[in-house]
Amino acid sequence: MEETHRVFNFAAGPANLPLNVLKKAQSELINWRGSGMSVMEMSHRGKEFKSIIEKAEADLRTLLDIPENYAVLFLQGGGTTQFAMIPLNLCKADDPVDYLVTGSWGDKALQEAQKYCKPNVIWSGKTDKYTKIPDFDTLNQNPDAKYLHICANETIHGVEFMDYPTPRNATGILIADMSSNFCSKPVDVSKFGIIYAGAQKNVAPAGVTIVIIRKDLIGNAQEITPVMLDYKVQADNNSLYNTPPCWPIYISGLVFEDLLEQGGLAEIEKKNKKKAELLYNAIDESKGFYRCPVEKSVRSLMNVPFTLEKSELEAEFIKEAAKENMVQLKGHRSVGGMRASIYNAMPLAGVEKLVAFMKDFQARHA
Amino acid sequence: MEETHRVFNFAAGPANLPLNVLKKAQSELINWRGSGMSVMEMSHRGKEFKSIIEKAEADLRTLLDIPENYAVLFLQGGGTTQFAMIPLNLCKADDPVDYLVTGSWGDKALQEAQKYCKPNVIWSGKTDKYTKIPDFDTLNQNPDAKYLHICANETIHGVEFMDYPTPRNATGILIADMSSNFCSKPVDVSKFGIIYAGAQKNVAPAGVTIVIIRKDLIGNAQEITPVMLDYKVQADNNSLYNTPPCWPIYISGLVFEDLLEQGGLAEIEKKNKKKAELLYNAIDESKGFYRCPVEKSVRSLMNVPFTLEKSELEAEFIKEAAKENMVQLKGHRSVGGMRASIYNAMPLAGVEKLVAFMKDFQARHA
Repeated sequence: MEETHRVFNFAAGPANLPLNVLKKAQSELINWRGSGMSVMEMSHRGKEFKSIIEKAEADLRTLLDIPENYAVLFLQGGGTTQFAMIPLNLCKADDPVDYLVTGSWGDKALQEAQKYCKPNVIWSGKTDKYTKIPDFDTLNQNPDAKYLHICANETIHGVEFMDYPTPRNATGILIADMSSNFCSKPVDVSKFGIIYAGAQKNVAPAGVTIVIIRKDLIGNAQEITPVMLDYKVQADNNSLYNTPPCWPIYISGLVFEDLLEQGGLAEIEKKNKKKAELLYNAIDESKGFYRCPVEKSVRSLMNVPFTLEKSELEAEFIKEAAKENMVQLKGHRSVGGMRASIYNAMPLAGVEKLVAFMKDFQARHA
Repeated sequence: MEETHRVFNFAAGPANLPLNVLKKAQSELINWRGSGMSVMEMSHRGKEFKSIIEKAEADLRTLLDIPENYAVLFLQGGGTTQFAMIPLNLCKADDPVDYLVTGSWGDKALQEAQKYCKPNVIWSGKTDKYTKIPDFDTLNQNPDAKYLHICANETIHGVEFMDYPTPRNATGILIADMSSNFCSKPVDVSKFGIIYAGAQKNVAPAGVTIVIIRKDLIGNAQEITPVMLDYKVQADNNSLYNTPPCWPIYISGLVFEDLLEQGGLAEIEKKNKKKAELLYNAIDESKGFYRCPVEKSVRSLMNVPFTLEKSELEAEFIKEAAKENMVQLKGHRSVGGMRASIYNAMPLAGVEKLVAFMKDFQARHA
């Protein structure tokens, strides 16, 4: 097995990282740029790591054109920790908030919020097995809600917001979990109060959670908030209140550089659209052999769930694909079938290979 | 600057990792053992990562001889998150607990606990500038306390427990923060209810927190506990409730292998004692030119704080040492002076070089 053997990894996350990023990390793993240390060994308060985290933040600000009145935080604990951190920091225990639930992750965020405020489900796609996003005009938002929460891309169900609802609450705050489509396309950050992302899909290895938060929302945490979950403590200390996940932050910085070199997020979006179109077309043109349950207008560019008309062939499909070095195509245990996650770092060649395999598999089993 | 140029890094953490561990991580960074993926890209639910985390746990159990009735958890958020997680999981809001405070970290743990229970300081070294540990027989423990908390090694003040107090409370639970001396010597785990460690000193890059917890203490979290901070959720899911910090866990596994290959923790302790003795002797034999404020019987094997009699020379000392590739010798901002952290991965040669430099510096400035 040669050193550079690589599979096409369709995992939902952790997932592919760009090969040139991995090569760079490998080349400077033992001695980072003449420092005589690995990034894994550096004091988080030393000048070397300071330059790494500051460059990562600056490049992310450029990529997403983040306004000055937003803080960028590099935290731990994944999106799931944000599910608690958001209501703990933005609400009092009796405050109403609105949740628009378009999949499992939005639902988990809702469940956790119930510990810290009074969340109300203004719409849920559960009865339709999470295959839709509603017309925003029909939403019955609570004018007293402290925020409106959405999950911008549902990793398990493959449902993605193509535009965003306007919050009709007193504070006008929209909050989005972008864990699985972060940096996959341009986003107008100024429309959001908070954007958060467990970074292990598009921009980093697992272990860092990126939070982009409007600064005026910081500083009102409930008394029961653990110090590590207080946005003010994290913001006041530039994410260095205690030791941050230095290596995942470093890799995210290399990925941000790579995305800028590729031309920024508008270019990335074009590539992602091309890959997704190729795959959805293969499904839609299969005369029902392959099926995607998601309504066409809200199909995710990142996570493509599909089933076989002959569901008894699904195990065989996954097994044969793996033999051809296309791995992790099994759907989430809660929905079954298949799922191809095609994040930024999935090359077009990977999707082309998958599509060719799908056609061949169909020809052999139709 | 050659690729393999290395400094002696005396940082308090993140700190040195063994060079052979770094080399191994580098060699398999792009293609982990023929999988065609980096460890950074693997699904945390795939067979490859499962083998990594299970081997890491098994090797840690061997190293510390962890009894079967203890769970091992790989979490996020550092020791500081444990400061909240422990009372949230072990106490009701009105429960009394005892804290023995021998330095800044024990004090921070105490401050955080005040949000979730009724902590009582049974002894504090603050008036002596945290240079002592009391005679355990003199401690006035509360028989109703739910636990007794200590910080086994104070990273900033260089004070280390050489043995441990017997908890005289109803539950008999002793809890220790071992962030900065974890796996530096054998420990009788059965004496503790919980041992926890932000792993970025002796065993991993920053981003993973290891918790060893007696299983009967799991399952009583307060209702306000964030789901990620509930030991039961983490234990029931083998640390995979959400995506764990895969890369830091992987490196910790390589470090555990390395420690076993070196002969285990009894051998490691011998090496650490030898390094520490060399350094403390150099201080004590300097006729007052160098001074360590810590009482001899509780001097840390890991963190050696010292000052110069002529304090105006300290900046020069640190600068000259850095020129000779001995970096991060500045003391913590709260105590000043110097601090040499000499964790497991600091080679004897590094301490020898520092001692030689100290003698030369003294000869030139006495």
